[in-house]
Amino acid sequence: MARPLTPILSEKRILEAVRRLALDGDFTLAQLARELDVRVSSIYHHVPSKAALVHLLRRDWIADLRAELGDTAGRDRLSRIVHSYWEFASGIPALVPLLVTEPLRDEELTWFYEELAATLHSIGVTDDRLLSLIGAIDGTVLGAAFDLISPPFQAADADPGEYPRLAAALATLPEDADRRVHLRRTLDDILTGLLRDSPADG
Amino acid sequence: MARPLTPILSEKRILEAVRRLALDGDFTLAQLARELDVRVSSIYHHVPSKAALVHLLRRDWIADLRAELGDTAGRDRLSRIVHSYWEFASGIPALVPLLVTEPLRDEELTWFYEELAATLHSIGVTDDRLLSLIGAIDGTVLGAAFDLISPPFQAADADPGEYPRLAAALATLPEDADRRVHLRRTLDDILTGLLRDSPADG
Repeated sequence: MARPLTPILSEKRILEAVRRLALDGDFTLAQLARELDVRVSSIYHHVPSKAALVHLLRRDWIADLRAELGDTAGRDRLSRIVHSYWEFASGIPALVPLLVTEPLRDEELTWFYEELAATLHSIGVTDDRLLSLIGAIDGTVLGAAFDLISPPFQAADADPGEYPRLAAALATLPEDADRRVHLRRTLDDILTGLLRDSPADG
Repeated sequence: MARPLTPILSEKRILEAVRRLALDGDFTLAQLARELDVRVSSIYHHVPSKAALVHLLRRDWIADLRAELGDTAGRDRLSRIVHSYWEFASGIPALVPLLVTEPLRDEELTWFYEELAATLHSIGVTDDRLLSLIGAIDGTVLGAAFDLISPPFQAADADPGEYPRLAAALATLPEDADRRVHLRRTLDDILTGLLRDSPADG
C-alpha cells in the first residue's frame, strides 16, 4: 500500500508546528492548519483550543525537565530549573500571554513550583522569602520571553547628542547580538543578586 | 442653557475609563463605549485604536514622572523611576501585552530609557552592564504586572503532604496579602541584588 503523502497528524507534529509559528509572533488556528497542510477541524480533533496547545507544550517541557534534573542538587539544580524554564518560554514568546491568562493549574505545574521551592529551600532560602523569589523568577522569565517579540532598541534609535547614556549602552552591543543569550545572562545576574545572602551550595 | 446630562467625551475621561477596565482583564472598544455610555464611533473620534490608548496612557505616565523626579539623584532617583514604572504597569495589567507588542517608539519612551540609563550610570553602573540592568527592570516590571491578572496560588492549592515546601511558602502569606505590594517588594529585592556591586549613592 502506498504511504500517504502527508504524514498523519499527531499531537507531536502539531506541537512542532506551534513552536515554529510562535517564535515569530502570534498566530491563528487557521494559520496553524495552513502550516500543517490540514483543515482546522483536523486540529480541533487533537486539541480543542489555543490555550490547550500551550498547556500541552508546558506539559512536554516539564516532563523533559523532570528527566533532565536527575539527582543534581543545590545551585546547580536551581540553575538547571531556571534555564530550562527560560528555554521553554523564550521558545514560544508569542504564547506567553496565554500561559499567564489561561490559568490551568495541573499537577505538572504544581510539581514545578514545589521543585523550585524545595531547591531554593535547600540552598538556605527561608520560607518567608520563597514566594518573593519564585515571583521574581516567574516575572523575569515570562517578561523577558514575551519581550522577545518586540523589536529591540538599535544603536541607530538613540541620537548620542540627545540621549548620550542610552547611545553609549547600545554601542556596547555587538552587531550580531543574540537577544536570547543576552537575556539569559540577565536572568543569571538577577538570580545571583537575589541569592546574595544565601549560603553557597549546601 | 441646560448642561448636557452626560459629560462631554474627552481624552481624559476615556483614559480614566480604560484604567478602570484594564485592572480586571482585557476588554473590547465596545465594552469601553458601554462604560462611557457613548457609541464606539465617538471613541474613534478621539483615539483610533486600543494600541493608541496604551500609548496615550504611557505618555501621561511619563509626563507625571518627569514632573515628579525633580532634582532627586542617585539611588533615590532610581527607586522613584522603577516604582513609578511599576505603578503605571500594575495599574493596567490587561494592557501590558499591547505595551510590548505595539512597538511605538516615541520621544517620551526614549527619554525614559535615557533617564534610566543616566541614573544607573550615576550610581556607578558601567556602560556594558546598562542594557542588562534595563532589561531586568523591564522584564520584571512588565512580567509581574501582567501576572496580576492570573489567579494567585492560594494556600489551599498545595497539599502539604505532597507539596510540603510550596505549602510552607504559601502559609507565610497573610490572608489579606495585597499582590501589588508583595510584587513591589520583589522588585526592590531584585534591584538591590542587581546593584550589589555598585557603590552606594554617589
